[in-house]
Amino acid sequence: MSRLVMKFGGTSVADLERIRNAARHVKREVDAGNEVAVVVSAMAGETNRLVSLCREASLMHDAREYDSVVASGEQVTSGLMAIVLQSMGVDARSWLGWQIPLRTDAAHSVARIADIDCRALIERMGRQQVAVVAGFQGLAPDNRVATLGRGGSDTSAVALAAALGAERCDIYTDVDGVYTTDPRIVAGARRLPKVAFEEMLEMASLGAKVLQVRSVELAMVHGVRTFVRSSFDDPDAPQTGPGNLPVGTLICDEDEIVEKQLVTGIAYSRDEAKITLRRVEDRPGVAAAIFGALSDAAINVDMIVQNVSEDGRTTDITFTVTTADYERALHLIENLRTQVKMESVTGSADVAKVSVIGIGMRSHAGVAAEAFKALAARGINIQLITTSEIKISILIDAAYTELAVRTLHSIYDLDKT
Amino acid sequence: MSRLVMKFGGTSVADLERIRNAARHVKREVDAGNEVAVVVSAMAGETNRLVSLCREASLMHDAREYDSVVASGEQVTSGLMAIVLQSMGVDARSWLGWQIPLRTDAAHSVARIADIDCRALIERMGRQQVAVVAGFQGLAPDNRVATLGRGGSDTSAVALAAALGAERCDIYTDVDGVYTTDPRIVAGARRLPKVAFEEMLEMASLGAKVLQVRSVELAMVHGVRTFVRSSFDDPDAPQTGPGNLPVGTLICDEDEIVEKQLVTGIAYSRDEAKITLRRVEDRPGVAAAIFGALSDAAINVDMIVQNVSEDGRTTDITFTVTTADYERALHLIENLRTQVKMESVTGSADVAKVSVIGIGMRSHAGVAAEAFKALAARGINIQLITTSEIKISILIDAAYTELAVRTLHSIYDLDKT
Repeated sequence: MSRLVMKFGGTSVADLERIRNAARHVKREVDAGNEVAVVVSAMAGETNRLVSLCREASLMHDAREYDSVVASGEQVTSGLMAIVLQSMGVDARSWLGWQIPLRTDAAHSVARIADIDCRALIERMGRQQVAVVAGFQGLAPDNRVATLGRGGSDTSAVALAAALGAERCDIYTDVDGVYTTDPRIVAGARRLPKVAFEEMLEMASLGAKVLQVRSVELAMVHGVRTFVRSSFDDPDAPQTGPGNLPVGTLICDEDEIVEKQLVTGIAYSRDEAKITLRRVEDRPGVAAAIFGALSDAAINVDMIVQNVSEDGRTTDITFTVTTADYERALHLIENLRTQVKMESVTGSADVAKVSVIGIGMRSHAGVAAEAFKALAARGINIQLITTSEIKISILIDAAYTELAVRTLHSIYDLDKT
Repeated sequence: MSRLVMKFGGTSVADLERIRNAARHVKREVDAGNEVAVVVSAMAGETNRLVSLCREASLMHDAREYDSVVASGEQVTSGLMAIVLQSMGVDARSWLGWQIPLRTDAAHSVARIADIDCRALIERMGRQQVAVVAGFQGLAPDNRVATLGRGGSDTSAVALAAALGAERCDIYTDVDGVYTTDPRIVAGARRLPKVAFEEMLEMASLGAKVLQVRSVELAMVHGVRTFVRSSFDDPDAPQTGPGNLPVGTLICDEDEIVEKQLVTGIAYSRDEAKITLRRVEDRPGVAAAIFGALSDAAINVDMIVQNVSEDGRTTDITFTVTTADYERALHLIENLRTQVKMESVTGSADVAKVSVIGIGMRSHAGVAAEAFKALAARGINIQLITTSEIKISILIDAAYTELAVRTLHSIYDLDKT
């Protein structure tokens, strides 16, 4: 017997039929003697509907009101899931963020979890009552509802698993695990049975949309073994395959991964735009002025490259932002030209970032060189490069995205055998 | 300056355009210097959608889960209304039942308000912040959401007005007041500028659907002047007409009504069914056995008539129930025949109840006789009669409903002049 957190995303609770299927997964784990907490998202489409209503009410809506409106989606699903579980003979009750309480900081609409008081949940779970927790929401210090940002239910689930000291956090979603790359681009992409926390963090940050980035950070910090699997599986099928795990991907400590790969996966993101400042005056404080202004405007800068120019008195700076921030960033830099002298500002949203990820890279040289060579051989021009201990990211012309992903996927032996 | 509660029903907040129009009514009252609390229903259709989801989840759903699911409708509207008010420059915030807190008893899904702690609301309202309260919901003793039954937002509004010591409770709805009878049946029906609490209670109980019965009871007990008006009025039109009131109906103490009418209105209800038990053994305890059994099954009995039979040893009993309870009541009586001897059980759902209401009847004899005479002249057979101090109710064949209403409306000078 162990404690288990099971999280069901929007497509897994899209209608009553899906909720019933999800409930059968829950019943299986309860029948196996586990103490279970279920975390649910809003029914697919519901959060978008509620967000649209807030926008229609006012583009400058109060984040506290937005939170109260949008959190109602998970409130509905948690009640329905509890009703369905009860109808299957499983004792269950719903818990809203303020009822647990799951306390957050004061940053409405992008709140972070501060503390989860699990005493009531643990007491009920110990009496074999399933706790159905509304994901994505908590109680802010002002005694009002706070939400955790889009995809926040993953974070709710992992944080709850950490607070409960759960054996595992199972994320039931519409895909059956984490793949070496996007299977829509590379037919030969393989499902990874295990991925290390650090790798998953890079993959989530770099565009693999299986899990919210913050939930992976939390899982890593608290060592929460997180298992990604499909909610569309037959709930009554045998639950062990090769390696004693069902079909899915376990995100875990790298010590738990026996056969480490050099490269685990190839991620990509088209949500990139680059801005190049030519012949910027090269004096102390210039970079701080530019990137400080972007930061003040809450624009996240990803890659940054600065070159020394020929004349020694000016420099070229290139950086990337998300496409959503592109126009705003360009405008902001133009306004900055009264303070910081530069010859020209150019940019393009027609770029993509392709990344090679693997903890094996820590102990192996030559991985980057191999990537550059292969891309060059296909005539793909590399615009920017950034690297970390376990990843290499390369900015290229967006038109070459699929070709680059396929090329990199093949050279590291990731294709299905 | 005075305190005002303004309540907007489902059709008055059906979409963002309607919510904006409602908000303009609120802004007008705020600009006039009033301290305002707004009570909102769920957007039209939303409660039905949520109730259907619960039913689809399980016909035997847990009332506590039902409450949590269904209360989300008002949660959404309260947030949207606060956002819209803010966008018009009116300081506002939403309040959910548990945030106020508005405490109820433990009867989930049909809860009654136990206590409203208005301190936080009054403090904010005193700083000119509009309190937008989610109607229909409160906090039950188990720290979970409770709802007040369908139409419960009227009750929320009146109870809040009582707790706040508000000058008036304005009910904005899709009709412009309370009429002498249903204008769809009698073209000459007149809007009543003022109706006494007692009269409104009878009219609401007898089928006029403008206000929830319980809200009228509360208004009467606490003396809350309740003004029914249309939310579709132009919010910026002059707010006084004849009698210093805008178009609408004020429900108030009878002392406030100077020109009392003999009869105020004619109500009707088709939601009636009658059951007749012939030759029931006439011994002590028989009525208790029959009506006790119905009461135990939560079946509300309205009219009851018992006649002495010719033989002196048996009696005939006729009573009415709602059409929803009709089949269940018949079945229950059939089962009772092992305990209570009777010759036959017959019934009909093809009946209607027509009622004449007016506090003037207290001091005038002959009102009932006039009604019976007029109905007889039209060939309408009277099946049952019940009376109180201020009303006469007559059960007739349903086919004669409109004719009976028109007949009674004309003989008491209620038609428009």
